[in-house]
Amino acid sequence: MITCSIVGVTGYAGLELLKLIEQHPTIHLEKAISDSCAGMTLSELYPWLRAGAQKLEPFQVEALAGIDLLFLATPSGVSADYIRQLESFDGVVIDLSGDLRLPSNLYETWYGKPPVNEIIQAEAVYGLTEWNRDKLSTAKWISNPGCYATAVSLALLPFVHNDWIDPLHIIVSACSGITGAGKGLSEKTHHAKSNENVQLYKIHSHQHIPEIEQTLNTWSEKKTTVSMSTHLLPINRGIMATITAQPNDDVSEDEWVRRLQSAYEHEPFIRVQQGEPEIKSVVGSNYCDLWVYKEERTNRLTIVSVIDNMQKGAAGQALQNANARFGFEETLGLLSQPQYI
Amino acid sequence: MITCSIVGVTGYAGLELLKLIEQHPTIHLEKAISDSCAGMTLSELYPWLRAGAQKLEPFQVEALAGIDLLFLATPSGVSADYIRQLESFDGVVIDLSGDLRLPSNLYETWYGKPPVNEIIQAEAVYGLTEWNRDKLSTAKWISNPGCYATAVSLALLPFVHNDWIDPLHIIVSACSGITGAGKGLSEKTHHAKSNENVQLYKIHSHQHIPEIEQTLNTWSEKKTTVSMSTHLLPINRGIMATITAQPNDDVSEDEWVRRLQSAYEHEPFIRVQQGEPEIKSVVGSNYCDLWVYKEERTNRLTIVSVIDNMQKGAAGQALQNANARFGFEETLGLLSQPQYI
Amino acid sequence: MITCSIVGVTGYAGLELLKLIEQHPTIHLEKAISDSCAGMTLSELYPWLRAGAQKLEPFQVEALAGIDLLFLATPSGVSADYIRQLESFDGVVIDLSGDLRLPSNLYETWYGKPPVNEIIQAEAVYGLTEWNRDKLSTAKWISNPGCYATAVSLALLPFVHNDWIDPLHIIVSACSGITGAGKGLSEKTHHAKSNENVQLYKIHSHQHIPEIEQTLNTWSEKKTTVSMSTHLLPINRGIMATITAQPNDDVSEDEWVRRLQSAYEHEPFIRVQQGEPEIKSVVGSNYCDLWVYKEERTNRLTIVSVIDNMQKGAAGQALQNANARFGFEETLGLLSQPQYI
Amino acid sequence: MITCSIVGVTGYAGLELLKLIEQHPTIHLEKAISDSCAGMTLSELYPWLRAGAQKLEPFQVEALAGIDLLFLATPSGVSADYIRQLESFDGVVIDLSGDLRLPSNLYETWYGKPPVNEIIQAEAVYGLTEWNRDKLSTAKWISNPGCYATAVSLALLPFVHNDWIDPLHIIVSACSGITGAGKGLSEKTHHAKSNENVQLYKIHSHQHIPEIEQTLNTWSEKKTTVSMSTHLLPINRGIMATITAQPNDDVSEDEWVRRLQSAYEHEPFIRVQQGEPEIKSVVGSNYCDLWVYKEERTNRLTIVSVIDNMQKGAAGQALQNANARFGFEETLGLLSQPQYI
Repeated sequence: MITCSIVGVTGYAGLELLKLIEQHPTIHLEKAISDSCAGMTLSELYPWLRAGAQKLEPFQVEALAGIDLLFLATPSGVSADYIRQLESFDGVVIDLSGDLRLPSNLYETWYGKPPVNEIIQAEAVYGLTEWNRDKLSTAKWISNPGCYATAVSLALLPFVHNDWIDPLHIIVSACSGITGAGKGLSEKTHHAKSNENVQLYKIHSHQHIPEIEQTLNTWSEKKTTVSMSTHLLPINRGIMATITAQPNDDVSEDEWVRRLQSAYEHEPFIRVQQGEPEIKSVVGSNYCDLWVYKEERTNRLTIVSVIDNMQKGAAGQALQNANARFGFEETLGLLSQPQYI
Repeated sequence: MITCSIVGVTGYAGLELLKLIEQHPTIHLEKAISDSCAGMTLSELYPWLRAGAQKLEPFQVEALAGIDLLFLATPSGVSADYIRQLESFDGVVIDLSGDLRLPSNLYETWYGKPPVNEIIQAEAVYGLTEWNRDKLSTAKWISNPGCYATAVSLALLPFVHNDWIDPLHIIVSACSGITGAGKGLSEKTHHAKSNENVQLYKIHSHQHIPEIEQTLNTWSEKKTTVSMSTHLLPINRGIMATITAQPNDDVSEDEWVRRLQSAYEHEPFIRVQQGEPEIKSVVGSNYCDLWVYKEERTNRLTIVSVIDNMQKGAAGQALQNANARFGFEETLGLLSQPQYI
Repeated sequence: MITCSIVGVTGYAGLELLKLIEQHPTIHLEKAISDSCAGMTLSELYPWLRAGAQKLEPFQVEALAGIDLLFLATPSGVSADYIRQLESFDGVVIDLSGDLRLPSNLYETWYGKPPVNEIIQAEAVYGLTEWNRDKLSTAKWISNPGCYATAVSLALLPFVHNDWIDPLHIIVSACSGITGAGKGLSEKTHHAKSNENVQLYKIHSHQHIPEIEQTLNTWSEKKTTVSMSTHLLPINRGIMATITAQPNDDVSEDEWVRRLQSAYEHEPFIRVQQGEPEIKSVVGSNYCDLWVYKEERTNRLTIVSVIDNMQKGAAGQALQNANARFGFEETLGLLSQPQYI
Repeated sequence: MITCSIVGVTGYAGLELLKLIEQHPTIHLEKAISDSCAGMTLSELYPWLRAGAQKLEPFQVEALAGIDLLFLATPSGVSADYIRQLESFDGVVIDLSGDLRLPSNLYETWYGKPPVNEIIQAEAVYGLTEWNRDKLSTAKWISNPGCYATAVSLALLPFVHNDWIDPLHIIVSACSGITGAGKGLSEKTHHAKSNENVQLYKIHSHQHIPEIEQTLNTWSEKKTTVSMSTHLLPINRGIMATITAQPNDDVSEDEWVRRLQSAYEHEPFIRVQQGEPEIKSVVGSNYCDLWVYKEERTNRLTIVSVIDNMQKGAAGQALQNANARFGFEETLGLLSQPQYI
């Protein structure tokens, strides 16, 4: 039995982690941490949750002695503050923010905030579980991938890693549900604004763009660049990335499907689907569903990836990384079915 | 005063036309036609509409004598049936379906139905008003553009017409509200399926793809191809097309904005906007809002176009074409403001 | 031609008024007023609106000289502040907030704010147009009714005025779209919270309850009380009030329908409908649709009322009151059709 | 280990049961039955489900030998047909339709269909688990309650059973998500119609009304009648019933809360909440959340009940009944947390 603590239980990712860990057989929530709501009980914070009388505690490094695993479900910048205090912490840290994902110079450019300690950042293992599980098994710091980055990287890695597509002609059009914009109040997420609307945002400046390129370049021999547009949709959860690419090989659509299936054939959370993609196939679950189509007229490929931004795009993948780190079955506690209706 | 008749008042486009024409000062609805509901009054059909006791009539060519203008707000295939009967009709016909948009061979390939008379099809003027108003002024047959085709063509025409972009590297990711899927009952449009979902559909086979290419090629010297993916969203109205292109000229984003503004500076319905695009800016109106962004890292352009699929993408543009055809001010009856909230 | 000014153009009601008045033939917007955004132009504030370069001005009584009509589209409390400064203003004031609706003691109890001058409040005419148009024609201060109050009072007034129902057994279950909760950011209106949800709010404490009772008592000889629950729905616009009452007369459902029709037979905005009610029948219009059903098993009546909270429940009724005040046709500028799809 | 079979796996309730039973430790799905899709595998039917290659079978009584438990997740009328064939079946039958809920005369009146065998109907135990678990433990036929009936009866039973309220002045205003209208295609559930709408339906004729009255009368000494209006909402799941009643006792709101808590203090799925009710508190779970408020001005009580119509209102309660019938812990397989965001 592993003991864990979640920092930031009042946010969306923290709440999702709470719910997932409650069902996990071998990871036990020892401390729920929130600076803003310290002193409340979980059931005061979330009266609708089956959560009991556990009290929220403020973040204090000393109080974490004996904790095996610490999730930072805190926003970028806030995680960095905590990480600076955690150098002496003995356990494993999984950070769900962007604070460990990029080297200092890129981080400053795209996040506009002071970066964390370069040594910690360099030491942190990028938690795209399917591609990095070997390194994860001994990691002290795990940097949990961004939601868009997860959807796009899982779709593209087989293609760039195997040199199947032109790495300089990748166009991503992605959309996300409203939880992707966070729990903070904003004009964009006021229901009367977001409802019946599609809002394009962070044009060419989304902080997951350099993360995706870095990930693709890690597993590719050729330098890869990506153009990505991001759309905010009036749904609660889910990401769809529709990716267009120029194939290097002149093979049939069936062969592309076969190649993609083969790349992920042993992965429990990655499903290569047939039939027209929809976001609902994965919401409420930790699955990433992939499709590939070939447009005969232009010989272009369209690769589509859908995930639940709160599960595979955040808390689910964090727990999958925890499972990988501690040697548990990766699917442990993560087999909830998609909600669908 | 012009007299008109609408065939297909029970469909979405027919209803939108009914509402628009009720406010039009110089076009009068003489006959509301519906084969399926003939005999009902408009207020029985739409109790919530201020529509009076006008009776729906079945389609009969003889009964159309004296009508100046006939709108076919009927589905593809159904319009073709009526068009075959309308050769002797004296007035102007505006067809909102796809039946007059493509030459026979393309029509058969993309629509999978028997095409209309080739002579009529060849004679029909494509009603993308802003680009074809000269020909429209004397047209007998007007082929009203498709909703996606309108959004995409208005965005791209200045770029391909002026050779500003590479015509072989155009990627369109487009999404539409649920009315785009029509009023017919289908699993895709059952609320419990479409709600909280994004459904990709007609992958590489949407019938507006050849329409867009034909339109771009009409006004371009180089051959243009387009890859387009289409997504069904849980909103009632609106289309957003997010287009990626490779510019031929190395100019600044401001210069791209200036060029686009200049291309449409006298157009009352086309607005080149600044600030992040959203669908809501146009829903309920006949506007097409355009934006252009330059991604400095990749030197790519992103061009975004939003319209209300029921207005500029269907009934609104049809009425704009009617205004153009009969020499009225093009904005007549079409100045409703976007609904927004 | 009447000149008007709108105070509070940045709010939902102010925006709706802007759009309505732009189409009004005999009322001209002379000044758009907003303390928070003074200096901006309307088109900077609402880039999607066809609004031109009119500059927003701060509220200054002196600058209002020559204005015939002033709309206060400001929140409760804010309107009161302006009203205190407007005693010397020569024109007509229509206040859309609750600040002129209740006498001081009730106002303090239900709004929890300092009331306006009692003399002005007593002088203000309650702008439920259909029931008060005689007094409106000479009013200096017009108190525009609340959205729930409009829906419920229009439904119940014929019944209590004519002593058709027991005035002590009236139960109202009402629901409103999200715009009813205002433009201010709040947890309740964050999309991820309100979407896929129904939120009961202001239980037994909604400030429209005393307004409804006061209105019913104005036109009834017997003292009337009302219990009302209010639900926040994940839709942008619209109110439905489902009212249960005990009839005094044992007549058929048809007779109840006939009575209701007769009560409102000359009213252009009140439609007694048949068929199952829906909110969509009125959204986008100034209509109030009413239905009455008789439950044979219990001999109870169910009376249903639907309005667009932004039109008949706010800006539309305000304009109707302006028309009534200045002797214009009441429907002037208010005949937009319901949006429906 | 108990073996079960689900008839009607293609419907909403059948799908929900599939998902619940997949996680149940002691009930095993032996056969998935669907006449319309026999021959397909579950994963062909639901490609997004983790369902394996189990083949759908047609309904054949002989093939059910050895099955301990049969769920009929079929529509009213269809269940009746199967029930007629099941007299010789040895196992337990839980019918989720309305076919076993009412005696023949009431059934014919409210359902308008031929009733099932009167002896079976009389023998069937009404599966409102919390109130009938003693009888359930030996039942052969279990009639699973309707969704509205569950929400309303659980709220009212403590009040009528203990004679706390006037049984002749109970007014229910209830609303349901779109899944309550079933998976069949209909105009009412077309997204463009239901979205941004509230649709009142089955006025005074909803078939759950006699079911509720029958249930209340079973546990009350005084005859109880209920008026209920039902509203269809643009959300996927959830029911809220807002109930108004006249108390017999003049006690404080705190005392009403205490009484209600006391009535359900040992029930794992019934939670008496404080704070303003919302549907989201229960969607995705088997909870029924209850609230009671006292309006001091009128001395009326408002009792609010929320459930997930697919879980506590259908499949969840069916599984709870199965647990009760076979002596398992009632919460087994039913402890999923509410989805909330």
